Amino acid sequence: MEKTILLMAQDARAARNALATASGAARQDALNRMAEKLLAVKEELFAANTEDLAAAPELSPAFRKRLQISEKIFTYMLNRLREAAALPDPVGRVLEGRTMPNGLQVSRVAVPIGVIAIIYEARPNVTTDAAAVALKSGNAVILKGGSESIRTNCVLAKAMREALVEAGLPADAVQLIERTDHGAVKELLQQDKLVDLVIPRGGKQLIRAVSEGTRIPVLKHYDGICHQYVAADADVAMATALVVNSKCQRVEVYNALETLLVEAAGAERLLPPIAAALRTQGVELRGCEATRRFLPDCLPATDEDWDTEYLAPILSIRVVSDIDEAIRHITEHGSGHTDGIITSSLELARRFTAAVDSASVLVNASTRLSGGGDYGMGAVVGISTDRLHARGPVGPAELCTYKWIAVGNGTLRN
Amino acid sequence: MEKTILLMAQDARAARNALATASGAARQDALNRMAEKLLAVKEELFAANTEDLAAAPELSPAFRKRLQISEKIFTYMLNRLREAAALPDPVGRVLEGRTMPNGLQVSRVAVPIGVIAIIYEARPNVTTDAAAVALKSGNAVILKGGSESIRTNCVLAKAMREALVEAGLPADAVQLIERTDHGAVKELLQQDKLVDLVIPRGGKQLIRAVSEGTRIPVLKHYDGICHQYVAADADVAMATALVVNSKCQRVEVYNALETLLVEAAGAERLLPPIAAALRTQGVELRGCEATRRFLPDCLPATDEDWDTEYLAPILSIRVVSDIDEAIRHITEHGSGHTDGIITSSLELARRFTAAVDSASVLVNASTRLSGGGDYGMGAVVGISTDRLHARGPVGPAELCTYKWIAVGNGTLRN
Repeated sequence: MEKTILLMAQDARAARNALATASGAARQDALNRMAEKLLAVKEELFAANTEDLAAAPELSPAFRKRLQISEKIFTYMLNRLREAAALPDPVGRVLEGRTMPNGLQVSRVAVPIGVIAIIYEARPNVTTDAAAVALKSGNAVILKGGSESIRTNCVLAKAMREALVEAGLPADAVQLIERTDHGAVKELLQQDKLVDLVIPRGGKQLIRAVSEGTRIPVLKHYDGICHQYVAADADVAMATALVVNSKCQRVEVYNALETLLVEAAGAERLLPPIAAALRTQGVELRGCEATRRFLPDCLPATDEDWDTEYLAPILSIRVVSDIDEAIRHITEHGSGHTDGIITSSLELARRFTAAVDSASVLVNASTRLSGGGDYGMGAVVGISTDRLHARGPVGPAELCTYKWIAVGNGTLRN
Repeated sequence: MEKTILLMAQDARAARNALATASGAARQDALNRMAEKLLAVKEELFAANTEDLAAAPELSPAFRKRLQISEKIFTYMLNRLREAAALPDPVGRVLEGRTMPNGLQVSRVAVPIGVIAIIYEARPNVTTDAAAVALKSGNAVILKGGSESIRTNCVLAKAMREALVEAGLPADAVQLIERTDHGAVKELLQQDKLVDLVIPRGGKQLIRAVSEGTRIPVLKHYDGICHQYVAADADVAMATALVVNSKCQRVEVYNALETLLVEAAGAERLLPPIAAALRTQGVELRGCEATRRFLPDCLPATDEDWDTEYLAPILSIRVVSDIDEAIRHITEHGSGHTDGIITSSLELARRFTAAVDSASVLVNASTRLSGGGDYGMGAVVGISTDRLHARGPVGPAELCTYKWIAVGNGTLRN
């Protein structure tokens, strides 16, 4: 008989308590052993993945591509586990500390959040990526992947659980929900006494359904309507390269550029070469009236365009009078994910980074750089668009909370 | 006509945007001016407070005491404002930073959360305390106090708003909801597009009603079922003084001691003097069977006692076999607020602080010390019992989130 979701949550809780006092070395060892185990079951894993693919011939080619574990993805999964193992331990970091006048030695120390449920869709590499980040920070994790990848995920979970046991840690630090019915997620979301955090990884609908169906805190990873503002003083070659990279390096991701803002005084000089470079890459351009004066064959943008995350080779372009109008546009239409300025002016860079309230604010850098790896954080479970707890890339440090430890010597309150 | 709640939330949003680029010096100036303004309207304030008290003769003496602004409370309010002004600016702190191999200069910088709604009950000093902490960290705040203190709160809010304007900041950085009907809170809780955080300060019922009625993130300040575990090796004089201070320094507060755990091997030596000292202070003792063997006239504790926050001069006592049983008891019955160990053993202290998963874990210190002031944090809006974002005392730093700022030189993603 399958384990009930309640029992899984209780076992995760017990595993979490054991993890709280386990050493960082044991967690590191487990992560390295997970990579070894994956290598050992590679044949079984690829066979299961092939079965998953065969079981769903009706899926779209794009979906099948996400579901498939290629050699490249497999290597990537192993590397992520090993990279996570090699990262410094986020648990036990002393975040601040002081000795008070009465001798009380106060310190704020990073500890695991506890039990984290991760609900995700197709890509099976999330199974190992997310487990790695969660375990690195001492959390017990309950994984609920897409039903299409259930066979693949079962092989992955089994291998990770064996590695945990070999490292002297509880197998239930990583659990996979094998049920593929909708009721399973519903039951999971009811365990607010046992589960400390839910991270839904997937489309808007999934995130909304999860947040509205639970009292457990949810760390949301919503869309990015990302902007680059090109000031009139920008170097045209740099601006062109940055805009093309921001838009085209990968179009279907959250931190791809969706709207380009150009300062009016520089539009005549900047827009034509930028547009030409984008068109070479097959990007459809939709511009405001002023834009179309400089780019006569540009399609007209509608009001809706400014609020659209295309995730496609389409870019909306607006000419703004100055940095203040750019900031107002971003405040009104942006999603607070990633927004950048391209300028040679220190003063404009200062104003932009102070006034734009986004998780990542960039100066002369591609929006595609707003990720964990490019910020030196190693493995991440995603890019949070929430304001509280964690904002931007969510790595092992962000899956920690803290406790205050105060050591006295019979210290009383007066 | 009174301002609608929606309009207040929109104005708070605008104020928040202005605050984002205002200097720390201006916020400091505003806080100092608030104290001056309060002094200037002292007579008017006390008159309003007297009216509030006169308008509700049916209130209990305890409630009236909380509602009343005494000379002592008034001085305390002024001091809190000035202390907040003097604290280092939490906004703009560089929390971490590095230069990546590609030259991208990455830093994580503290920024205000944004618009914070604070819903609270009787004590009018929360009006200035909470506004001070929120403003110190650059947030715009919407205050909803108890209807019983509405006249008092109006005078306080008016003074604070005048101080803001004199300091060159938007008055709407501090707004008070003057409506006293229940609909006002309901409307406020619907503004999830405009309000970034709600902090309910008050009883369980208030907190629960707020969390269940909104999609805005809620920072919860629940009860404390606080423990002290006295190991067999504890010094009897230190243990007695700590237990008495933890229980009796103030009984009606969240970090007052509710359950005492004593290691069996030391119970005969430790329990009688501790019990005698507690009885001198008028504390009613309720013990487990083993406790009652050492304290024959102690009342029997029921299962319910281990899960009760008395907030009264009552203490439950349980004899446990060792530190592991103590940790299990705290894990099962504690509320994760504040728990301590009294011991002379470094090893026991290490084990306890590692295994007990509470916001504050103390060694040889009174539970009453788990507050912002005693941790050197200055003014706080409360003690969070949540695990995410902020845990334990919530001061200006905890009312910040962060943004990532990345500065490149035409830096692309490969």
